[in-house]
Amino acid sequence: MPISSLFRPGSKLKIKDADASQRLLDDGDKKLDKDEAKTRDKLATMKLGEHISAYQELLYAQKKYKLLIVLQGMDTSGKDGTVRGVFGQINPLGARTVAFKAPSNEEKEHDYLWRVHKEVPTNGEIVIFNRSHYEDVLITRVHDWIDDAECTRRYAQIRDFERMLTETGTVILKFFLHISKQEQKQRLQERIDDPHKHWKFDPQDLVERKFWDAYQTQYEKVIAATDAEHAPWHIIPADSKTQRNLAIASVVVEKLESLELEYPPAKPELAKLKIS
Amino acid sequence: MPISSLFRPGSKLKIKDADASQRLLDDGDKKLDKDEAKTRDKLATMKLGEHISAYQELLYAQKKYKLLIVLQGMDTSGKDGTVRGVFGQINPLGARTVAFKAPSNEEKEHDYLWRVHKEVPTNGEIVIFNRSHYEDVLITRVHDWIDDAECTRRYAQIRDFERMLTETGTVILKFFLHISKQEQKQRLQERIDDPHKHWKFDPQDLVERKFWDAYQTQYEKVIAATDAEHAPWHIIPADSKTQRNLAIASVVVEKLESLELEYPPAKPELAKLKIS
Repeated sequence: MPISSLFRPGSKLKIKDADASQRLLDDGDKKLDKDEAKTRDKLATMKLGEHISAYQELLYAQKKYKLLIVLQGMDTSGKDGTVRGVFGQINPLGARTVAFKAPSNEEKEHDYLWRVHKEVPTNGEIVIFNRSHYEDVLITRVHDWIDDAECTRRYAQIRDFERMLTETGTVILKFFLHISKQEQKQRLQERIDDPHKHWKFDPQDLVERKFWDAYQTQYEKVIAATDAEHAPWHIIPADSKTQRNLAIASVVVEKLESLELEYPPAKPELAKLKIS
Repeated sequence: MPISSLFRPGSKLKIKDADASQRLLDDGDKKLDKDEAKTRDKLATMKLGEHISAYQELLYAQKKYKLLIVLQGMDTSGKDGTVRGVFGQINPLGARTVAFKAPSNEEKEHDYLWRVHKEVPTNGEIVIFNRSHYEDVLITRVHDWIDDAECTRRYAQIRDFERMLTETGTVILKFFLHISKQEQKQRLQERIDDPHKHWKFDPQDLVERKFWDAYQTQYEKVIAATDAEHAPWHIIPADSKTQRNLAIASVVVEKLESLELEYPPAKPELAKLKIS
């Protein structure tokens, strides 16, 4: 069974049932302590990172595909850490990260897909969305800024948008970084206990935390409504940072492998050229 | 003497006299073979990369400064390799690379600084320019697309532009990656000899190579005209890739150190907060 299917949403998805601390590599016979397991995970992820880096050069050389990675998850679920841990080794010249925050005034004057469409990858490029158009069916619905009818319309619009992107050469992978409420509590508390992390602490995170259950339910709906073969969701157990990175790197490598990327054909006119 | 001053242009700059194979670390008593020296350089650069990465978090947290790195150099001088080798470890969320190619039709309808200004860093951000507005006083002058009078006007415009950026919080570091004509020959030949690198080979590179001396002379003029204390040029010996990365990383770390970056003050209201 391919690694990626471990993380595919079931037909009757209940995120609460998915274990946020599930482990991808088990320890087999030998009992590894926590640090040993982390080191093992990190080395495995680095190895996969080298593959991603090599595939990225092919992707860039061939200019046939565009790769779009969407990262979604609750506050502190590790979106930034994923960018760093999984995609830290690739050549910045062919890759870009875009963090979508609350929309600016100009962005609000447009439809919600406008600012997203501007940032999609070009041929040969890898773009990582840290949050995305999915916020427009998550925070907006949880806080009743849009109603069910509008939300349902948006599901269809998002499906159409992503299908168009796929039909024009974009490979889309969507990841929901699934942490438990207990894990978020610890991570927020760490930011508070370390004065050097206060700048990362946004009081709004506490407000959103109160809506935890509503978010989980809405994530279930969103994932069910927008999961598609050409733009699949993967639900990544993310209580462990090293296991999270390992899982995401595995899915990305598996996908890149399946594309059968190739260098463009050699140019015969260069065969005997000598530079003077 | 600070490292950075090793690479500062002299008052009567002759690039031809600057040794493109000059070494930053010498081997001291022990004779290192080539591979040993490379490994030594790489480890030293990685160590500096960790410093850059740590400073970048401070830069990002403090949001007081913006850092703009300009990379210029002849074809194959290693601009891409520098991005990867020196800035590969930093968090992509606070850093961006912009590669300036031949201007698009839309860009040509604007002044030459328009597309550059759009891409300068925001507070706390690091932006690396792979080529830059300096192309508009290099290729353009070498091929007589602009005359001396226009070129001189542009020097002044560039100085003004960079002064304005500095006065509004941007720290600017400009690097000329200095390779020898012989080294370029080898690097171009490698691209030709390896069919997997043919996609990187642009026949235009051979045309530009014919203008080698004109470019060197023009670089001397440009550097002399636009070197400033607030936006200094550094001439980096770049025949050795590992020494090049080491030199650039050293200059960047030295500069970041000098900024005395600090975390924003802790928030007293968080002192006793317990997350529920």
